[in-house]
Amino acid sequence: MAKEITPRSENYAQWYLDIVKKADLADNSAVRGCMVIKPRGYAIWEKMQAQLDKMFKDSGHVNAYFPLFIPKSFLSKEAEHVEGFAKECAVVTHHRLKNDPGGKGVVVDPEALLEEELIVRPTSETIIWHTYKDWIQSYRDLPLLINQWANVVRWELRTRPFLRTTEFLWQEGHTAHATAAEAIEEAERIHEIYTRFVEDYMAVPVIKGRKTPSERFAGAVDTYTIEALMQDNKALQAGTSHFLGQNFAKAFDVTFLTEKNTNEFVWATSWGVSTRLVGGLIMTHSDDEGLIVPPRLAPLQVVIVPIPKPTTLLDERCEAILSALKDKGISVKYDRDERNRPGFKFAQHELYGVPVRIGIGMRDLENNQAEVARRDTKEKNLVPMDGLVPYIEQLLLDMQQDLFNKAKKFRADNSHYVDSYEDFKEKIESPGGFFYCHWDGSAETEAKIKEETKATIRCIPIDQTIEAGYCMVTGKPSNGRVILARAY
Amino acid sequence: MAKEITPRSENYAQWYLDIVKKADLADNSAVRGCMVIKPRGYAIWEKMQAQLDKMFKDSGHVNAYFPLFIPKSFLSKEAEHVEGFAKECAVVTHHRLKNDPGGKGVVVDPEALLEEELIVRPTSETIIWHTYKDWIQSYRDLPLLINQWANVVRWELRTRPFLRTTEFLWQEGHTAHATAAEAIEEAERIHEIYTRFVEDYMAVPVIKGRKTPSERFAGAVDTYTIEALMQDNKALQAGTSHFLGQNFAKAFDVTFLTEKNTNEFVWATSWGVSTRLVGGLIMTHSDDEGLIVPPRLAPLQVVIVPIPKPTTLLDERCEAILSALKDKGISVKYDRDERNRPGFKFAQHELYGVPVRIGIGMRDLENNQAEVARRDTKEKNLVPMDGLVPYIEQLLLDMQQDLFNKAKKFRADNSHYVDSYEDFKEKIESPGGFFYCHWDGSAETEAKIKEETKATIRCIPIDQTIEAGYCMVTGKPSNGRVILARAY
Repeated sequence: MAKEITPRSENYAQWYLDIVKKADLADNSAVRGCMVIKPRGYAIWEKMQAQLDKMFKDSGHVNAYFPLFIPKSFLSKEAEHVEGFAKECAVVTHHRLKNDPGGKGVVVDPEALLEEELIVRPTSETIIWHTYKDWIQSYRDLPLLINQWANVVRWELRTRPFLRTTEFLWQEGHTAHATAAEAIEEAERIHEIYTRFVEDYMAVPVIKGRKTPSERFAGAVDTYTIEALMQDNKALQAGTSHFLGQNFAKAFDVTFLTEKNTNEFVWATSWGVSTRLVGGLIMTHSDDEGLIVPPRLAPLQVVIVPIPKPTTLLDERCEAILSALKDKGISVKYDRDERNRPGFKFAQHELYGVPVRIGIGMRDLENNQAEVARRDTKEKNLVPMDGLVPYIEQLLLDMQQDLFNKAKKFRADNSHYVDSYEDFKEKIESPGGFFYCHWDGSAETEAKIKEETKATIRCIPIDQTIEAGYCMVTGKPSNGRVILARAY
Repeated sequence: MAKEITPRSENYAQWYLDIVKKADLADNSAVRGCMVIKPRGYAIWEKMQAQLDKMFKDSGHVNAYFPLFIPKSFLSKEAEHVEGFAKECAVVTHHRLKNDPGGKGVVVDPEALLEEELIVRPTSETIIWHTYKDWIQSYRDLPLLINQWANVVRWELRTRPFLRTTEFLWQEGHTAHATAAEAIEEAERIHEIYTRFVEDYMAVPVIKGRKTPSERFAGAVDTYTIEALMQDNKALQAGTSHFLGQNFAKAFDVTFLTEKNTNEFVWATSWGVSTRLVGGLIMTHSDDEGLIVPPRLAPLQVVIVPIPKPTTLLDERCEAILSALKDKGISVKYDRDERNRPGFKFAQHELYGVPVRIGIGMRDLENNQAEVARRDTKEKNLVPMDGLVPYIEQLLLDMQQDLFNKAKKFRADNSHYVDSYEDFKEKIESPGGFFYCHWDGSAETEAKIKEETKATIRCIPIDQTIEAGYCMVTGKPSNGRVILARAY
C-alpha cells in the first residue's frame, strides 16, 4: 500500500493535507472553501461532540436550536460586533429559482427578491439576543444556560480542511446572567471545561490565557482562550469563551426585573469550539506514517488481524478476544478481510490511526500469546493470552498519557523566553514556537510586532508570573510576560 | 397556573399552537417561517436522534457531512428532481457586506457578487452524488451507506412549528449499491427501521405503504412511506425512503467497474425523517391539559414532588427514591423548589408532559407509601414504598404500550371502507380519517380527487389485500384499496 505522505520535515503544510486526504478524513467539495467531512473524520467529531455535550450538560447547560438565517439589520445593532467580523459572509437575496426561459436549466427568479437580505449565521449572538428579549423578564428567568450545535459560514479567503473552512460545524454557548460576577464565573467555568476536554481527551496541552483587546472577539469585554502548539511550531487557538458584559443586552434591549424591583440589563457570555479541533488533533499527534488519534477519541481503538489469513481456529480465538474487549467498553474490530495481506492491513490501520493492533498467527495460538503493537511508538510486544485484556486496557491508558506527555515536552522544548526584539525576530522565523516576552501593553506595539513578524500575542497567560521587565520593542516597563507565536 | 390552552374540540390547529407555545417546545423567530427550537423541544429531538442514530449504525450506516451550499447548476442536472421541488429555496448571491456609505448599518457589497449562485440545500442528493463520483470506482467501493444529520431549507409559504418550517433539522441517508435489488432491499430496510422507531419509540401507529407516481419524491423510482393519523383525522407523512434507480448516477455520471469488468451506473437510495416527527408526537398523544410524551422519548420521565414543601425527612426519602430510580436508568428530577406550591407544580409537570409524578407528604412517610400519578390517564395510586421502583419501571412500560394502543384504536375507529365517491366526499369533510378506497390507478383520477376534496392518496399499503372492485370515481376496475386522507 503506497501511502505517499509528504514527510513533515519536507513540507509540513503538504503533510497535513496528505494526512487528511489519505486517512480519509475529509475531501474537497464543489463549493469553494467548503469541505466534505468523510465518515472517518466525522466519527472523530462525533466522539468530541459526545464528550463535550456531556460536560456541558453536567454543568447545567441545555441545548436548543436557533435559525440559520439572520436578518441583515441585526448585524448592525452591536457596533463592534459588525465592525469586527460580520462582513465576509453568505448573503441570501432571493427565495426562488425558475426554469430558464432560454431553456437551459434554472435561473434565479428576479421577482423573488427578499425585502431584507438574510445572512447565513457567522455566529449567533445577534439572533439569540433578539430572542432572549422575549424569554427574559425577571431574575427568576436567569441564568439562562443554552448551547447549540450548528453549522456556521464565514467567507474565508484562504481555507484549509478542518482548520479554516467557509462552512464549519461547532457548538456555540450563549448564556444570560443577573450579575457581571456570575457571567465572568461562567466564562471561566467554560474555559476550564475546554481545557479539560482538550488536555484530557485530545491529549493536547494548552496554555490558558486571555486575549489582548485587539485580539478579542468582536463585541466581547474579555476573551478567554486556550492555545496549543502544533508540530510546525505554530500556535492554534483551540477554543474561546467570552465575557460579553452588557453589550448585546444593550444592543437588543434585554433587561430584567431584579429582586430589588429595579430594571437592569442582562450580563452575557458566549463560547465555542469547532471542527477546527479535529485539525488540531491531527497536527499535534500524527506522524509521517499517518494519523495518530488518542485512544479516548479514537472511533476504533483496537483492531485484530489474523496472520497470514483467517482459519477456523484463528477465527475462534479472535472472536473471543473481540468479545472480551467489547465487554470492557473498548471499540474493536476483527479485520478478517481475505482480500488483503497482513502487511497491507498493518499499513492501512497505521494510516487510519487505530491506537492498538493485535496480530495473531498459528504460532501464537500454540504459544497462547498475541503480538500487540501500539500506533504511537510502533513498539510491539508478545503478550500472554491470559493477561491480554488487562494489558490492552492499560496500554490504552498509557498511550493517552504518553501522547499528552510527548506533546507537552515538545511544547517545553519550543517555548522561549526572549528579551530582545532582534532575538525574537530571528527565532520566530526559526525555530518558531511559543515566545514569552515583555510587552508594554499598547495596541500600537502589538500591531507593529504583527506587521513586522507575522506573530501575534496569543494570550496573556492566566498563571502569569509577576516579573518586572521591559517591553522588548519599546523598552517601556512591563510586569509580566505574554505569549507570542505565529498562528493558524 | 393558568394554562390557557384552547380545547381540541374548539380549534385543533390553535390547540396545537398553544401546546407548542405553553409547553415551551418552540418559539417563533425573527425570520419568516423559521422557528427557534426551545430546550424542551430540542431535548425530545435529541432523544429521537440518539435512537435513530443507533438504529442506523446497527444496520451498518456511518455518518458524514456534506456542504450546506449547492451550486445552482447542480439542480438542473436531474430533470425530474428540479421540476419536483427545487424551486422555492434560499439563494445566496453575494459573499460580503460593507458599511453603508450613508452611515446607516450595513449593506450588501455589490462587488461581492458570486459567479454562480449557491442554493441552501433543500435536500442533498445533487451535491452528494457529485461527490460520490470521486468515491466510487469499483464494486469494492460498494455499498456506500452514508447518513448525515443536517439542517435544510425550503421556502414554504405556510408554516407551522415542527410540521412545516422554512428551515428544519433532519437526517438524510444516501446510499449507493451495485444492483437494483440491493438498493431496493436497502430502501425497504430503512422503511422498516422508520416503522420500528415511530411505532416502538414514538408510540405512533403507522401504515407502511408506497406512494403513487404523482406523490413520489422528485427523482425517485419508488417512494416508501409511513403514514400516521393525527387526532383531527388528518394524515401525517412521518418518514420516506426512496429507491432512486440510476437517476442520480446518470445525472452525475457515477459508474463502477463490476466484478465482470464492465462499467455500470450505480443504484441509489435516499431517505429522511425530520423535526416534523416532534410535531407528529405532540399531535398524536397530547390532550387539553398539555403535552404527553411516551416514556421512551421523554427527556424527563419521572418527577418527585414533596407535599406541601420540602422538609429534612422528605428530602431524605425523596433523594433516596431519586437515586434508586436513577440506578435503573430512569431520568428523574426532585422538584424541591420552595417558591411554588404542589398544585402549581402538578399543573406544570402535566403541561410539560412528564410521564410519571410521585407525590410524597408527611402522612405518606408515616404510612411508608407514595402517591404515583401517570400523565396519560391521570390515574393516581398509593404505592407501598418497598415496591415503588419496580412499580415505576412497569408503569413506564405500560404507558408506552397504552399510548400506542390508544392511538391504534383511534385510527381503527377512524378508518373507513368507502365505495361511493359521494360517500367519500361527505365523510372526508366530517369525520375525516383514513379512507380505504378503490382507485383506477390513473394520475387523472388522483388529481381530480385532490382538486375536489383536498384529499390525497397517502399510500398504496404494503399489506394491501387483493380485492376486486371498482374505482369510486370512474368505475373502472381495481384490484385493491389505497388509502386516502387529507394531510399535513
